[in-house]
Amino acid sequence: MNKAWGFVYWGQLVDSWEEMPPSNGMINPGYKLQWERFQQQITTDYLGWQAKIVNEYKRPDQFVEQDFPGGVLTSVNQVDVSKALDIVAVNPYHDVQDQLDGWWIALCGDLSRSLKRQNYLVTETNAQTIGWDSKGQFPPYDGQLRLNAYSHVASGANMVAYWHWSSLHYGQETYWKGVLSHDLEPNRVYNEMSRVGAEWKKAGPKLVNFQRKNDVAILYSIDSYHGIRFMPVDDKVDYMTVLSQMHKALYRLNVGTDFVFPESANLADYKVIVVPPLYVASDALLTKLVNYVRNGGQLVMSFKSGFTNEYDTVRWSRMPGVLREAAGFSYQEFSNLKQPLALKGDPFHAGEANSVSVWAEFLMPDTAKPLAYYDHPFFGKYPAITRNSFGKGTLTYEGTCLSDQLQEKVLQDILKVASLAGADQQLPKPVHVEHGTSPAGIRMHYFLNYSGEAQTFAYAYGDGADVLTGRTYARSAGVTLPAWDLAIIEER
Amino acid sequence: MNKAWGFVYWGQLVDSWEEMPPSNGMINPGYKLQWERFQQQITTDYLGWQAKIVNEYKRPDQFVEQDFPGGVLTSVNQVDVSKALDIVAVNPYHDVQDQLDGWWIALCGDLSRSLKRQNYLVTETNAQTIGWDSKGQFPPYDGQLRLNAYSHVASGANMVAYWHWSSLHYGQETYWKGVLSHDLEPNRVYNEMSRVGAEWKKAGPKLVNFQRKNDVAILYSIDSYHGIRFMPVDDKVDYMTVLSQMHKALYRLNVGTDFVFPESANLADYKVIVVPPLYVASDALLTKLVNYVRNGGQLVMSFKSGFTNEYDTVRWSRMPGVLREAAGFSYQEFSNLKQPLALKGDPFHAGEANSVSVWAEFLMPDTAKPLAYYDHPFFGKYPAITRNSFGKGTLTYEGTCLSDQLQEKVLQDILKVASLAGADQQLPKPVHVEHGTSPAGIRMHYFLNYSGEAQTFAYAYGDGADVLTGRTYARSAGVTLPAWDLAIIEER
Amino acid sequence: MNKAWGFVYWGQLVDSWEEMPPSNGMINPGYKLQWERFQQQITTDYLGWQAKIVNEYKRPDQFVEQDFPGGVLTSVNQVDVSKALDIVAVNPYHDVQDQLDGWWIALCGDLSRSLKRQNYLVTETNAQTIGWDSKGQFPPYDGQLRLNAYSHVASGANMVAYWHWSSLHYGQETYWKGVLSHDLEPNRVYNEMSRVGAEWKKAGPKLVNFQRKNDVAILYSIDSYHGIRFMPVDDKVDYMTVLSQMHKALYRLNVGTDFVFPESANLADYKVIVVPPLYVASDALLTKLVNYVRNGGQLVMSFKSGFTNEYDTVRWSRMPGVLREAAGFSYQEFSNLKQPLALKGDPFHAGEANSVSVWAEFLMPDTAKPLAYYDHPFFGKYPAITRNSFGKGTLTYEGTCLSDQLQEKVLQDILKVASLAGADQQLPKPVHVEHGTSPAGIRMHYFLNYSGEAQTFAYAYGDGADVLTGRTYARSAGVTLPAWDLAIIEER
Repeated sequence: MNKAWGFVYWGQLVDSWEEMPPSNGMINPGYKLQWERFQQQITTDYLGWQAKIVNEYKRPDQFVEQDFPGGVLTSVNQVDVSKALDIVAVNPYHDVQDQLDGWWIALCGDLSRSLKRQNYLVTETNAQTIGWDSKGQFPPYDGQLRLNAYSHVASGANMVAYWHWSSLHYGQETYWKGVLSHDLEPNRVYNEMSRVGAEWKKAGPKLVNFQRKNDVAILYSIDSYHGIRFMPVDDKVDYMTVLSQMHKALYRLNVGTDFVFPESANLADYKVIVVPPLYVASDALLTKLVNYVRNGGQLVMSFKSGFTNEYDTVRWSRMPGVLREAAGFSYQEFSNLKQPLALKGDPFHAGEANSVSVWAEFLMPDTAKPLAYYDHPFFGKYPAITRNSFGKGTLTYEGTCLSDQLQEKVLQDILKVASLAGADQQLPKPVHVEHGTSPAGIRMHYFLNYSGEAQTFAYAYGDGADVLTGRTYARSAGVTLPAWDLAIIEER
Repeated sequence: MNKAWGFVYWGQLVDSWEEMPPSNGMINPGYKLQWERFQQQITTDYLGWQAKIVNEYKRPDQFVEQDFPGGVLTSVNQVDVSKALDIVAVNPYHDVQDQLDGWWIALCGDLSRSLKRQNYLVTETNAQTIGWDSKGQFPPYDGQLRLNAYSHVASGANMVAYWHWSSLHYGQETYWKGVLSHDLEPNRVYNEMSRVGAEWKKAGPKLVNFQRKNDVAILYSIDSYHGIRFMPVDDKVDYMTVLSQMHKALYRLNVGTDFVFPESANLADYKVIVVPPLYVASDALLTKLVNYVRNGGQLVMSFKSGFTNEYDTVRWSRMPGVLREAAGFSYQEFSNLKQPLALKGDPFHAGEANSVSVWAEFLMPDTAKPLAYYDHPFFGKYPAITRNSFGKGTLTYEGTCLSDQLQEKVLQDILKVASLAGADQQLPKPVHVEHGTSPAGIRMHYFLNYSGEAQTFAYAYGDGADVLTGRTYARSAGVTLPAWDLAIIEER
Repeated sequence: MNKAWGFVYWGQLVDSWEEMPPSNGMINPGYKLQWERFQQQITTDYLGWQAKIVNEYKRPDQFVEQDFPGGVLTSVNQVDVSKALDIVAVNPYHDVQDQLDGWWIALCGDLSRSLKRQNYLVTETNAQTIGWDSKGQFPPYDGQLRLNAYSHVASGANMVAYWHWSSLHYGQETYWKGVLSHDLEPNRVYNEMSRVGAEWKKAGPKLVNFQRKNDVAILYSIDSYHGIRFMPVDDKVDYMTVLSQMHKALYRLNVGTDFVFPESANLADYKVIVVPPLYVASDALLTKLVNYVRNGGQLVMSFKSGFTNEYDTVRWSRMPGVLREAAGFSYQEFSNLKQPLALKGDPFHAGEANSVSVWAEFLMPDTAKPLAYYDHPFFGKYPAITRNSFGKGTLTYEGTCLSDQLQEKVLQDILKVASLAGADQQLPKPVHVEHGTSPAGIRMHYFLNYSGEAQTFAYAYGDGADVLTGRTYARSAGVTLPAWDLAIIEER
């Protein structure tokens, strides 16, 4: 990218794309995208310069980190920034009480771990309550703070730190409460944190530096986020809602998930790659994905993928451009959907959740097999979801926006195609599992109960023992987790 | 109007009424109205000057047109602007798919045709989809594009043009799609447009310059729109919602409708004149309407008519001022309605739609006959709708805001009084009919099926044949229109 | 308060707290509070200077008044301003028609009467309709205007004046209608006002200067309003909604209520004091309230009381600080409530209204008796409402936000504790009663029927006669009030 191009436009210094002179009286999304890239580059450069200075002076045992706020950032290019860091850090602030399900911890962890493909630090997270006022004060229920601490470790965190120690008596963060309340005395939360501390003092060496190896990845394209933002498809649905929906579905399916990026060279490491709307993509990127399928990968793609090139300019070939042969269809038209539609015959057995909305591409199959059709007199002639066998793999395409449960059903189906389905999808819904190995190479399984009721299930892995309690479990033994509690079973 | 008066206020140059010094610390609606008139006059003058220049240079076979956006404009005085034009043009963009009912096409056509009392051009209208983003992409269902083209002709359009030919690959109008998609290949919409083109190549001379002659008109007062805007009666109801409701009711009743204006001299051409809230009106205008009734016209008026004079100043006589004798009542008080009320005894047989809302004038009849009373312990002593016989005509007055269906019932009733009721009100609801004559003076009837189901009805006019198919129809013969299809029957 | 402190901050002249440089990058609520106090002081000083000038020139029979808008003001310190006035005046504009219940008249009256602890004037109130546009025009039903006039007198008004006499024909207040309409003729409202005038000409001397002596007071803390505004607890609940809820509950219980203020020295005059969230309070103020309880008062306090000191800085002792011994509990934590919760076992027999919301303090009783617990697996271990006997009185504490009906039940309960319960709580709900004495020292009872239906009840006071009709009533006699009508019974 020519940075000067973003800076100076028709001889004028431009501070933001809102100021740019319009083309034919109107704004070109492509200019906006260039401007976003330029803004990201400023941050990347600045942080890189800072890291360079620190590296000149720091001791060998010191390191450079950057604590990103939680979530998938869109104003900062985290992949580029991470190149200058020794270690990635993140501040995952999340819902608590009845809304706690561990998903946000996993999302932040999966992304942080994937940026440099190594473990990370949690530099801030919820202690008592958060908020810049008194409207969203939600202290954890008994057990939740401890459960969360272990969830971070299971995602690959090598540290969990809290903001703050004690609560401030004045200022904007008066209600962003620490471990201690304003009275500076021990309390319920302090006591629970003390328990975690005691456990980690003992079991820490077995827990730290937990190693994850996943078979499924999500492709995150920051350009596509912005491309769709400039030409939104809906007030409620955007690139990030689809990415979140796909990640959450995989989380609920208990499938360990990494992130990959347009520049990633390791696509072949994964049996399944899931692609939120890849609206902005060069021919080279599309070709890389086509080759992934040709070589045996299972690719799941969302609507609008391939619609524009790397300049956010619509392709002037039949859609979806370079993807057409691997996808096995083309389309010339699309429609927003005023009302949600059902898929004809409920092909994924989703019941009341058999519902698609917002968008429908008028897919015309060449070789693709339709998996679902719209139940509608006009749209019904076009398939809503297709799958095409291409080379040694498949390309599954969602030409519409699926309900959350339908997305989970479609992704569960691709797990079967990729021979990744198993016992983890049979666990009680509130139980989340993460697998990996200790630094010593021993296989470990985290079972985390995200609910206020006890949960019981059959243990499906090698004989082992709970790191915290010492209780032993043979394969197929029953495991019972109390409310908001966990087990970490280390195989023998 | 003294333009300098709008410009300079108390010795100050004023750029907008928001800047005007307040009277007694407050803003006078009358100043705002003068300012609006001044703003309108600037546009009228400017367009007039342009037309004058063009007229000096254009060839005799060339003409001056102005394409207005669709709808009834309120920031531009279309009556005044049209005086400088050879022909009026309009860009009617409208809802499509399940929302398509032809009404907006008729509204734009009725107004455009009435401005110079001659046929007009459609310079832009929906091809594939419209929108400055991807949130409202609604391509037409099969048949809708062709149906719309004929609707324009039935309203008096002498041309139908589309925006654009092919779709843009970048810029703000990327999703304002043309006849061709971004792939620049023939497609479904192109094919349908080709069919229309082939039909018009053949039947065009019979269709173009279709002549309408209507018995019903709506009085549009741009001043009243602004007067009510400055002193609104409700967040959802204003002058234009009532005007639209009245026009849509007449459209649904299949009554051909023109527009007239405060300066119109041809009121006597119409058997029925329907008047949205005529809030701003000179004594002269009210007197013209009184004379219309006296001479045999059927006048239907809305609440707040006559409340202020031409300066937007409230009349200091008993309301409704000059109208009192013709209306047959007076009132001193009025109330907003917190909740909708029923009309006592459902006098118009409207069932669940027997509902009025927003406003209630406390009408005290002199000679008027109450047609309906509020069903309420306090408001119930005042009639909601009255009719007064005056001279050779009647004045029907709506002292409240009617539900859409109730408005349709009241207007259907006045059609009977005016001996205009007939077979057209018996057609299946989705079928719209327009009557007129070909340039050769032959009577023609457009039957347009605005629905996704076939519609059947009895043909009630002189023996004739369908211009497009050649099929002949005797009086009372059954006509069946397929989904989103039409028949144009030319009498023999 | 050091006014210069509010003006100049770190050497900078500051025009509003939005401009103040942040502390640690964030805004300190304490600075905002000082700024509010400074703004209030400017108004107080300015009005005081004006009064001083007038006092130098006015005749002995003239007086200085200030007409406050209705309600409890938060941008002006009414207590301080009132010191410079001879008499307080107020403009109570209120809902009419079906929304009329007399409450707003009572609220404005109770506050105005309490400011200088003497009767007051009504300088403006609803005549026909009010509004700066035509969206909220609600003329009174027959009888409502007269009923309201008497309600003002029953609250201690020594005058009732209307805005305006006749209605304006132009300008912002065109629809702020007077007694006469735009036609300047007598009308329905004029006739009703004439009746009141005739009655007062006759009975006025008995009615004017009505003396109220109440046993219940509400503590209004303007600082606490702002403190909670800077750190809001909810989008819908704030200091003023709780104050209004408490006052309205007492009004519905027919308990005459005064207001007291942090600087009031007459707390001992009241058997019950009700305290909306006293978020900002000095140790001295809390100690005054503790002493009130110690000496036999019944104190009802809301959540968050005592949380910050007079600088809006959170106390660094165990909550609720100085109140702990009198309250009989402490707490370290609190939570917002995502959803309303029931109180376990419906201890106040509130039925469907057995509901609390927004906020829950985790009360840990020392000596307090829990009156109610949350029905919830986690919050259920903490009481929601407590009562503590301390010295000769009790302190009832609401650690959560009650439904309106629940608040009424809790206050009804404290009336029993204070031996204030009686016949007035048995009246039909729409009937409001106010008690007091005429200037001659005779006991008088106003019974006001705020409904469109006649109401009948037993008269429970000393034998007497209706001032307006002369009808006599013995104790226990039946009284029937027609719709929107009243009786004023003067004891013999």
